[in-house]
Amino acid sequence: MWRLHQFPLCPFSRKVRFTLAVKGLAVELVHCLPWEKPEGLLALNPAGQTPVIALDGLVIADSSAICHYFEETVERVPLLAGTPEERAETRRLTAWFDHKFYAEVTAPLLSERMYKRLYTRTAPEAATLRTASRAAEMHLDYLDWLLERRRWLSGSAFGLADVAAAAQLSVADYLSGLQWDGHEPARIWYSALKSRPTFRPLLGERMEGLPPPDHYDKLDF
Amino acid sequence: MWRLHQFPLCPFSRKVRFTLAVKGLAVELVHCLPWEKPEGLLALNPAGQTPVIALDGLVIADSSAICHYFEETVERVPLLAGTPEERAETRRLTAWFDHKFYAEVTAPLLSERMYKRLYTRTAPEAATLRTASRAAEMHLDYLDWLLERRRWLSGSAFGLADVAAAAQLSVADYLSGLQWDGHEPARIWYSALKSRPTFRPLLGERMEGLPPPDHYDKLDF
Repeated sequence: MWRLHQFPLCPFSRKVRFTLAVKGLAVELVHCLPWEKPEGLLALNPAGQTPVIALDGLVIADSSAICHYFEETVERVPLLAGTPEERAETRRLTAWFDHKFYAEVTAPLLSERMYKRLYTRTAPEAATLRTASRAAEMHLDYLDWLLERRRWLSGSAFGLADVAAAAQLSVADYLSGLQWDGHEPARIWYSALKSRPTFRPLLGERMEGLPPPDHYDKLDF
Repeated sequence: MWRLHQFPLCPFSRKVRFTLAVKGLAVELVHCLPWEKPEGLLALNPAGQTPVIALDGLVIADSSAICHYFEETVERVPLLAGTPEERAETRRLTAWFDHKFYAEVTAPLLSERMYKRLYTRTAPEAATLRTASRAAEMHLDYLDWLLERRRWLSGSAFGLADVAAAAQLSVADYLSGLQWDGHEPARIWYSALKSRPTFRPLLGERMEGLPPPDHYDKLDF
């Protein structure tokens, strides 16, 4: 069985886990905190980051490389479907959530509300949280705009952009970084994802010592 | 003809331009500075970043989406060749240079040595430059390590990882961020790239008011 090195609030591990579930693949989870620089992780991935997936000596690091690998080797539920132009739009939006949303929302929330609470035991910076909150609002507006025009993020079919977005949003939501009020299109889309048996199990996991808000794993939020 | 919105020191635009040249495609360049938030750029790419490429109403944003699009639509010189496992390694290393090298080396150099010099007219932070310099040294060591084992970065064939790495390194080198002494494998590999007619023209371009060091476009450096 594939072994995935990850931790519960790693958004890129969530993207890979959601992809694996959609593709119908079982995986053994290895709990791994990159900031502790565990030797096992560095031996598998010199970048020192989660996720890394391994099986019988084959090692794949980087969520984009991992998701493309399973997209190319498992036909079930294509996540990069359609024409090259449609795939370009899926990849553009996947990159939007992997990099822009992560840098502006998820990363500051992880730093201020997870790392400081659990590791350095210091208070979060209010100014950083305010900036992340404004960015989150902008991203939810953009989600609304897209979902008023399309059933799924990059078009008529569920795909990798939805997976990447759900992964980032679910971590931001766990860390109380999203205000869903006034974002009906985004809320309806996220509610549909939350009810999926391929995504739902992720919402049951907890980072020890850091509980999520009450609405976090509820379908009605 | 495709129109590419870019600026001379945008490493992701360089990655796209090198890819287009390798694929044998001509492109019209549109000079575009993202930090000035030009309306034309925002209309094409809500993320507000270069590169964006457009032709007859088709718009593709994000260097990864653009490179995959041309890889899928132009057969000449495959940049993601081989087995799914070999492609995973190419994608891992492409992500390494696109994200890790960029965050640790190119982005701080662009901020301290380009943006502050040309726009805010303030002095660069010495501590930031020292950190970037240490990171650059680590990345050159990693390049050496890879190139002692492989002809090209991700294996026996030239591919997208070489393109992505050359794009980042050339911008870092323009900004005097690389010390090549003691990095023979990396230097030989980069020298081979510098001599390619598909890459060489990029090295002739200048950012106005910001000259590169003398060795920058020389094959012997």
